[in-house]
Amino acid sequence: ATPHSLEQTFETLAKHGGMAWIGLYRPTQEEMAAVAKEFGLHRLAVEDAVSAHQRPKIERYDSSLFTVLRPARYLDDTESVEFGELHIFTGSNFVVTIRHAETGGVARVRHRLEARPDLLCHGPEAVLYALLDQVVDDYAPVVAGLENDIDEIEDQLFSGDSAVSRRIYELAREVIQFQRAIQPLPDVMSLLEKGFEKYGVDIELQRSLRDVEDHVQRVISRVNSFRDLLQNALTLDGTLTANRQNEASAAQNEQVKKISSWAAILFAPSFVAGIYGMNFDNMPELHWDFGYPMAIGLMVGAALLMYLIFKRKGWL
Amino acid sequence: ATPHSLEQTFETLAKHGGMAWIGLYRPTQEEMAAVAKEFGLHRLAVEDAVSAHQRPKIERYDSSLFTVLRPARYLDDTESVEFGELHIFTGSNFVVTIRHAETGGVARVRHRLEARPDLLCHGPEAVLYALLDQVVDDYAPVVAGLENDIDEIEDQLFSGDSAVSRRIYELAREVIQFQRAIQPLPDVMSLLEKGFEKYGVDIELQRSLRDVEDHVQRVISRVNSFRDLLQNALTLDGTLTANRQNEASAAQNEQVKKISSWAAILFAPSFVAGIYGMNFDNMPELHWDFGYPMAIGLMVGAALLMYLIFKRKGWL
Amino acid sequence: ATPHSLEQTFETLAKHGGMAWIGLYRPTQEEMAAVAKEFGLHRLAVEDAVSAHQRPKIERYDSSLFTVLRPARYLDDTESVEFGELHIFTGSNFVVTIRHAETGGVARVRHRLEARPDLLCHGPEAVLYALLDQVVDDYAPVVAGLENDIDEIEDQLFSGDSAVSRRIYELAREVIQFQRAIQPLPDVMSLLEKGFEKYGVDIELQRSLRDVEDHVQRVISRVNSFRDLLQNALTLDGTLTANRQNEASAAQNEQVKKISSWAAILFAPSFVAGIYGMNFDNMPELHWDFGYPMAIGLMVGAALLMYLIFKRKGWL
Amino acid sequence: ATPHSLEQTFETLAKHGGMAWIGLYRPTQEEMAAVAKEFGLHRLAVEDAVSAHQRPKIERYDSSLFTVLRPARYLDDTESVEFGELHIFTGSNFVVTIRHAETGGVARVRHRLEARPDLLCHGPEAVLYALLDQVVDDYAPVVAGLENDIDEIEDQLFSGDSAVSRRIYELAREVIQFQRAIQPLPDVMSLLEKGFEKYGVDIELQRSLRDVEDHVQRVISRVNSFRDLLQNALTLDGTLTANRQNEASAAQNEQVKKISSWAAILFAPSFVAGIYGMNFDNMPELHWDFGYPMAIGLMVGAALLMYLIFKRKGWL
Amino acid sequence: ATPHSLEQTFETLAKHGGMAWIGLYRPTQEEMAAVAKEFGLHRLAVEDAVSAHQRPKIERYDSSLFTVLRPARYLDDTESVEFGELHIFTGSNFVVTIRHAETGGVARVRHRLEARPDLLCHGPEAVLYALLDQVVDDYAPVVAGLENDIDEIEDQLFSGDSAVSRRIYELAREVIQFQRAIQPLPDVMSLLEKGFEKYGVDIELQRSLRDVEDHVQRVISRVNSFRDLLQNALTLDGTLTANRQNEASAAQNEQVKKISSWAAILFAPSFVAGIYGMNFDNMPELHWDFGYPMAIGLMVGAALLMYLIFKRKGWL
Repeated sequence: ATPHSLEQTFETLAKHGGMAWIGLYRPTQEEMAAVAKEFGLHRLAVEDAVSAHQRPKIERYDSSLFTVLRPARYLDDTESVEFGELHIFTGSNFVVTIRHAETGGVARVRHRLEARPDLLCHGPEAVLYALLDQVVDDYAPVVAGLENDIDEIEDQLFSGDSAVSRRIYELAREVIQFQRAIQPLPDVMSLLEKGFEKYGVDIELQRSLRDVEDHVQRVISRVNSFRDLLQNALTLDGTLTANRQNEASAAQNEQVKKISSWAAILFAPSFVAGIYGMNFDNMPELHWDFGYPMAIGLMVGAALLMYLIFKRKGWL
Repeated sequence: ATPHSLEQTFETLAKHGGMAWIGLYRPTQEEMAAVAKEFGLHRLAVEDAVSAHQRPKIERYDSSLFTVLRPARYLDDTESVEFGELHIFTGSNFVVTIRHAETGGVARVRHRLEARPDLLCHGPEAVLYALLDQVVDDYAPVVAGLENDIDEIEDQLFSGDSAVSRRIYELAREVIQFQRAIQPLPDVMSLLEKGFEKYGVDIELQRSLRDVEDHVQRVISRVNSFRDLLQNALTLDGTLTANRQNEASAAQNEQVKKISSWAAILFAPSFVAGIYGMNFDNMPELHWDFGYPMAIGLMVGAALLMYLIFKRKGWL
Repeated sequence: ATPHSLEQTFETLAKHGGMAWIGLYRPTQEEMAAVAKEFGLHRLAVEDAVSAHQRPKIERYDSSLFTVLRPARYLDDTESVEFGELHIFTGSNFVVTIRHAETGGVARVRHRLEARPDLLCHGPEAVLYALLDQVVDDYAPVVAGLENDIDEIEDQLFSGDSAVSRRIYELAREVIQFQRAIQPLPDVMSLLEKGFEKYGVDIELQRSLRDVEDHVQRVISRVNSFRDLLQNALTLDGTLTANRQNEASAAQNEQVKKISSWAAILFAPSFVAGIYGMNFDNMPELHWDFGYPMAIGLMVGAALLMYLIFKRKGWL
Repeated sequence: ATPHSLEQTFETLAKHGGMAWIGLYRPTQEEMAAVAKEFGLHRLAVEDAVSAHQRPKIERYDSSLFTVLRPARYLDDTESVEFGELHIFTGSNFVVTIRHAETGGVARVRHRLEARPDLLCHGPEAVLYALLDQVVDDYAPVVAGLENDIDEIEDQLFSGDSAVSRRIYELAREVIQFQRAIQPLPDVMSLLEKGFEKYGVDIELQRSLRDVEDHVQRVISRVNSFRDLLQNALTLDGTLTANRQNEASAAQNEQVKKISSWAAILFAPSFVAGIYGMNFDNMPELHWDFGYPMAIGLMVGAALLMYLIFKRKGWL
Repeated sequence: ATPHSLEQTFETLAKHGGMAWIGLYRPTQEEMAAVAKEFGLHRLAVEDAVSAHQRPKIERYDSSLFTVLRPARYLDDTESVEFGELHIFTGSNFVVTIRHAETGGVARVRHRLEARPDLLCHGPEAVLYALLDQVVDDYAPVVAGLENDIDEIEDQLFSGDSAVSRRIYELAREVIQFQRAIQPLPDVMSLLEKGFEKYGVDIELQRSLRDVEDHVQRVISRVNSFRDLLQNALTLDGTLTANRQNEASAAQNEQVKKISSWAAILFAPSFVAGIYGMNFDNMPELHWDFGYPMAIGLMVGAALLMYLIFKRKGWL
């Protein structure tokens, strides 16, 4: 049965016993106060649950356990990672989940568990472990998305796309945030494990938690390697950018050099013309029959000579 | 009752019992000596308290506990973080707070505690924890201010503002100082926790301290990520700066190339004019009826030819 | 005897006792289910074994041990490292090996062990240790291949091959992946060692495991040093690239400078010609007998003078 | 009483009992041998004491404790840190201090202790702690000097002084050396602390040692932050240098561009002159009354046209 | 007595008792097999001893201890560090040393020990410790050589030698290799220390081992600081290189600018000549008496005007 108000739920629980699972989405102060009163939640944990912006952690109180997880979702269109926040109170006969962002994880876990009464009979602990499992499993597509972006960045790097600098930087920022969201998880889990013996946790639940822990280690190890790859990419981008633009600048300078050379070559015959444009009375060449062709020849010769010299010096 | 001199306070305490809370601001040697004598404070701790420039720490002496905290304040106009220094002596029936910078934290804690006798009845320990709580809570706006600056820097980076280099560097310096102020805190707190059992600290105080510890971890984790972000920003700034100025230089070179090309194009017809300016007796073209238009045509043609060649070579 | 179907194997094992070694290559869900049922493998380990993409680890279940190893192979033509995945279930009387990539390691271990009944008599544990040994031994050529590449890169770096940037980056990526594959191994091994006493492992097997552990440490230490070397190479590549291209650009600029200088030198005599091409009535030089040679002399002199000035200023 | 030779000292000690404090400065082998024999110092420690170049450490021998400290002094004129070396042997009734560099610390401690018989009565241990205290206190001006240099460097960085590169590098070298001198100190001190209970060290001496330890932690934390600051400064220096010189180069290129543009503008009227300098018989303009002013007008017009075009293209 | 063949040695040992010290240089498989059989060396250790390329380590077997050390030698002419490999088996009555490179260390230890029967009487352990001592002592000249190179590099850096890039890189490679050779030593030694009590090691030997350990720590600390210094040098080299070449390029551009300016200045009078070279009928200046000097004056004036303008604009 799924009661529709908090009061109804409390009533049902009191009457029929069993386990209550209350799912809240950005609860108001009043809603939280009602839930806290009913289940005897600790004031400090309730404060944390209302304010959000917690890092993953786990806190044991007398009658309840307060867990904070940070589910993540990869947004393909902006190439960014969206972080949610999931607070879980578990007691002997209740689970309260509080979501601070729209993520489908809780609903999916609920459906899965409702289909497996064998797991649900382990009570609130099974729900907590299933939620942990779901949150960690949902990291896989995020890691895949980031890995895909890094692959694309590597292609972009070597193809000379200048927009890649910004992309590397922004991806590195996402990776740093992701690291912050997952690095406390091993501690959270080893805290849970320390309670195994004391609270007589079922061996199967223990094993599935160890499995989740293993997945977390895998995610952390890959995300750390992303960090290193992006760092290298950032350094390389600097080198490649300098390289490419130096090449462009070298090509331009080469052209300026050639243009200057051609101008200098043209200048030589022009100088010949200048000489025979002088108005001296006594310039014998001017009166030669073949003076004009000789001058033309001189011009061609001078230009040719300069062309050859420049060619040999590698200026053309 | 708030007595107005130290002597009065000591007297009141001796007469009525209870707990004395003495707040000093940059005390003189004499003031400290009086307080130290009355409460039996340890010589070394007193020396530390007078000299300031301590790092956060906690020291247990026979009859008292000496705690150093470094409150921080974000100054928006200079984008810097101002660090205060708060020394706290706690004994069985007294709290002595010594401030070395103007920070409102102590006064706020006093008002809050005076309004909650239930907390004050835990005695000096409750005051110490409340001060710790306040100092750590006051880190939140500093973190927010730094985060805001980093966001602005990221925008500045990609918009090409050259003042960003200095801003990144100075922000990194602030972050390094902030790290120095907060990194010893987890040790301080675990030292307090070690005394929990021995001194029979109330379970509620224990929990609130764990809550504070959690906040400290959050602050440290975020400030560490600032460090990484700023490091990346510094590297990227180098690359983007080089990039932008290479682009500017490429644009300039392109213009020089075009100017040179146009000069070379103009030079060709000029050379034709040079030829027909020569004074040879025997230059048949000079006597042709259409010699002049032919020369003009030749000029236009030569210029056109060069223009086409240059265009094809990509020099224009 | 090597039975040809799983059913046959199970039957033989039930009938004759001894130890079964089942080698699977990318098994289907059904195959895994059959094996898991027969040997009572744990559900979570079986899930892992089917899905692949595990990091090296070891998990103890009631009746079996689940080990994941990542064999590596160096591909010379692409200069890359190919990582396989080897899952091993060991129980009291069986070994199940599951390969997720074509690697000859398992077959080689099988042949070696079949030739040494003294080792095989230690049962499944001996097989596990032999596989570990083989996988770690097979890292040696990978390390050698990477070391060889790094040597080549160092030569390439200083010979000025611009393709080296990409090669350094890609090699660094391979090294980072390799680090991910081998870094969990010491933990895997110390977990095995913790079981030595409890499970009464033969002293010779213990020693050979310690030997393998020593090899792993050697591989890790060398691969870490590769990381540092490649990081240095990446930095140096940036410097050397800038260096080389600055040199090229300097050579080009030198040529432009020379061409400009020669143009300027030619310009001086051309100016002399311009002067004597003026049409003033009263230009005495024009009517001198040696006016023309004088003008030529003036031209040569002007050019020479400029040449000497430019030479002295270092412009030529 | 202050005896003047080693023999005299040994005699006095044997006769009157009490505690001997022998201060040596770069002792010869013979002096050391005499002292070692008298007090039963261990051969290995004596070898170390003669050879110098030790890192800070502490060694317990049967009857004595051998301590190595590295006092530091900031030299303002060379902006460098000078490291001394202080070896201390302490036994039940003697202290031997060996200095390997001129530092005033030992003398100052002696004067201070002679004025406080209450401390001296704790015997050789009190001397050792006082020396430790002095050495660590003397680090404060070194830290202040380095901090001051870093502040100056930051100003220099942004004011564009090119000598700053070298200064940053050399300061980083000093900081690295300083780190080497102080990083072993916490281990030295925790070793001393381990002997507290066993040797029944006075509680006041214990506290003063903890105070010194706290100072050491502060020095280490600040010196580590210097490292990070200088690293950032080195990176930033690269960026700012590139920036500044790119700007200089851009300004130069701008001038070349303008000069080229003006040359091109002058070239246009010059070409007009070239045309009317041609000698064709049939050039009607030459015979017009206003041919000459028309040509001048053409020249001005051509130059103006080019000026406007160049201006619009941003070439001027 | 020094027997000349292995068989003879074994015989002598069996007959006379005492301790055998067998020194092998790159032994063949057969030699090793003979020695291993005689002294009951463990198969795995023997395999390691033959194959070489081990990292420093220590392994305890039932009747023997297997130690691997890596002696180092600084080669001044190539500025490189040559690493040897020394394998040592020690049992109750034998020492087997196996060298894989020509290093004089073993011979020197032998001579030293033969001269000190008091040490030799501690048996194989004394030999092992003496070898350790020798190997670590021999690191001192290597460290000195590297330090000397780094000093030279610093001078080279600031004097602008472009070969320094390669030298820094290669020295960093040597340092990384050296770090690999020495970093496992502290673990080796603490393993030896763990056996102190169990095997009743003489207190003097214990102390000399601690002395060696101290030297190792010193070497490691200095080599680590070399790493940091070379890293800084690599970064700085990039900056200084860019700096120097930018300066060279700026000087070149300055010259191009000046040459262009002079060309432009010469162009102005040339233009005046062009005007008076025109052939208009009606050009009054041509017929003036002082037309020619006026033109020359105009030319000088134009050139002077441009010179002044350019000078004021800073183009000259």
